[in-house]
Amino acid sequence: MRYCVIMCGGVGSRFWPFSRAGMPKQFLDFFGTGKSLLQLTAERIAPLVPQERIIVVTNEEYASIVREQLPLVPQANILLEPARRNTAPCICWAAQHIAASDPDASIITLPSDHLILKTDAFLQAMAEGLDFVETHDALLTLGIMPTRPETAYGYIQRGSPATNAPGILKVKSFTEKPTLDMARVLLESGDFFWNSGIFLWSASSILRAFSQHAPEIAEVFDPGVGSYATPEESAFIAEAFPSAPNISIDYAVMEKASNVYVKTVDLGWSDLGNWGALHDVSPHTLEGNVTQGCKVLAPDCSGSIFAVKGDKIIVAAGLKDYIVAENGNALLIVPRSREQEIKTMLSEVRSRYGEKYL
Amino acid sequence: MRYCVIMCGGVGSRFWPFSRAGMPKQFLDFFGTGKSLLQLTAERIAPLVPQERIIVVTNEEYASIVREQLPLVPQANILLEPARRNTAPCICWAAQHIAASDPDASIITLPSDHLILKTDAFLQAMAEGLDFVETHDALLTLGIMPTRPETAYGYIQRGSPATNAPGILKVKSFTEKPTLDMARVLLESGDFFWNSGIFLWSASSILRAFSQHAPEIAEVFDPGVGSYATPEESAFIAEAFPSAPNISIDYAVMEKASNVYVKTVDLGWSDLGNWGALHDVSPHTLEGNVTQGCKVLAPDCSGSIFAVKGDKIIVAAGLKDYIVAENGNALLIVPRSREQEIKTMLSEVRSRYGEKYL
Repeated sequence: MRYCVIMCGGVGSRFWPFSRAGMPKQFLDFFGTGKSLLQLTAERIAPLVPQERIIVVTNEEYASIVREQLPLVPQANILLEPARRNTAPCICWAAQHIAASDPDASIITLPSDHLILKTDAFLQAMAEGLDFVETHDALLTLGIMPTRPETAYGYIQRGSPATNAPGILKVKSFTEKPTLDMARVLLESGDFFWNSGIFLWSASSILRAFSQHAPEIAEVFDPGVGSYATPEESAFIAEAFPSAPNISIDYAVMEKASNVYVKTVDLGWSDLGNWGALHDVSPHTLEGNVTQGCKVLAPDCSGSIFAVKGDKIIVAAGLKDYIVAENGNALLIVPRSREQEIKTMLSEVRSRYGEKYL
Repeated sequence: MRYCVIMCGGVGSRFWPFSRAGMPKQFLDFFGTGKSLLQLTAERIAPLVPQERIIVVTNEEYASIVREQLPLVPQANILLEPARRNTAPCICWAAQHIAASDPDASIITLPSDHLILKTDAFLQAMAEGLDFVETHDALLTLGIMPTRPETAYGYIQRGSPATNAPGILKVKSFTEKPTLDMARVLLESGDFFWNSGIFLWSASSILRAFSQHAPEIAEVFDPGVGSYATPEESAFIAEAFPSAPNISIDYAVMEKASNVYVKTVDLGWSDLGNWGALHDVSPHTLEGNVTQGCKVLAPDCSGSIFAVKGDKIIVAAGLKDYIVAENGNALLIVPRSREQEIKTMLSEVRSRYGEKYL
């Protein structure tokens, strides 16, 4: 049967203070639709995968938020990580968990915090992708046609078309976050696509790939066979999971395996990875300002983002290309061009004042 | 006996949103001392006038705040104005109220929301001023040596010294808020002093001055004689006060009377009339930033004021000469050079969203 794994453990520190340590980005209603990014993700896949076959992997810290936001997903489907170990251990555990009750499962793996505007194209790509991975020993990733020389994403180079699978191509290479010059070359070549972080495979294919290319991860989770999807699972995970290496699925498996394919799609996609990306995909005023759920009076402001929690008025003047974000006990007012420095500023906040403002 | 009238009815809209409609500037702990400007004012005069002879005149809207902030001032001494009518009606009522039980009273009249750094000089000036007005039919005002060509203040021109009263001079003329060119001339002449809004007189002198120079005010309050300082006072005021003209003591009396004197002093005084004035008198960082009771991390910010209520962190970058102020449901981020426009912006907020954000 078909399953969907939603990866939901990120800390989302790049949207501080709009997102906070206890309430990262995937749990926020970013677009004022009344639904969080996680809820939108679960809703988007619903026509293809029913809620009882949605598996959510999150940090145990967020258990109650996930339960509250996805009440129709069975409790047993919410896998709680006792430690943060990036995507590879998360994916390996989820595959073992699913395979325990359905060894023939096929799995869609989705980030919980991306924006996808074209739901129909997404569902069609998912359906065609599942057809492919259910009939081939293949690891399939979704590639997004790049629109700018983005340096924050990984790129996938397409190779020759797969036989009997229109729109699916062999992957020739992965390129991690490039320099700006390199990104321009990749963009112009037409052969490179953004790595969306959306993956499709059968449980058997991905578990085989772990054994072959990431044995240090397989060895952590293989001893749990017999306890997955049973009452013993959580005790096993509590013991084993923290010893898994902290590594992404791209590094651990995708860049090494030879049976990796890409399906190129136009999804109206954004990873919403930073304020700049959010600004790009949000509705603008004539002056290029973006407002996230607050009332704003902004004479002579342009190109700015106002993201303030609660029923609040912001009166701002003369801000060009600024981020103004507030939530709880923290207020951020920083030029968009200096977004990269926010992390350093937060380290300074931590060292001066401790964790309470993060 | 000696009395002190503290005028405490202002709305302080210029410090929005740090001050709010329901909590104007005089009730705020502006300098993080743990005491409001009103409390500091009452404390400052205490060595000369005991609390039971302090009269506080405020708008009825602020009755509970005044009682809470000045618990030692007797309830009967808190005069509640049923309408806003500027300083002249306030002063006339307070003088009548005091004269009703002590016709020979001398009175210090103080704004509740000014900063005075030199308490000793202030008390000495008050004591000497009282000696003067207790022995002369005189209206005495405190004049501050100007330090810059300020256009927001009124100026007092000094005349010849009073006989037998060192440091007290006849007033030759009043000049209301001058143009910048005019202010420069006044500053250089050495003959002009800022009008501090601090007044001393006997009850009989000020009431006589109202009768002579502002009969339209005297006529409102004269019929109340017999009810002042009795249980009938508030009923009389509720009826009569709203019919008083809306006018300052300067326009109504001081600019017309011939027995007006000025005592020139150096008090370390500021009227804290706007953010600029507050910035001038507050402790600065090396970069010229001023912080009002909040934690601030401000790389590449300079000349700015950060006034945010509550236990909060502000992370701001690249702001030059800005006002960042927040309180409750409102956040202001405006260049100091545009402070004059805030009032217009607030009108816009009112017309779009109503009173709840003001």
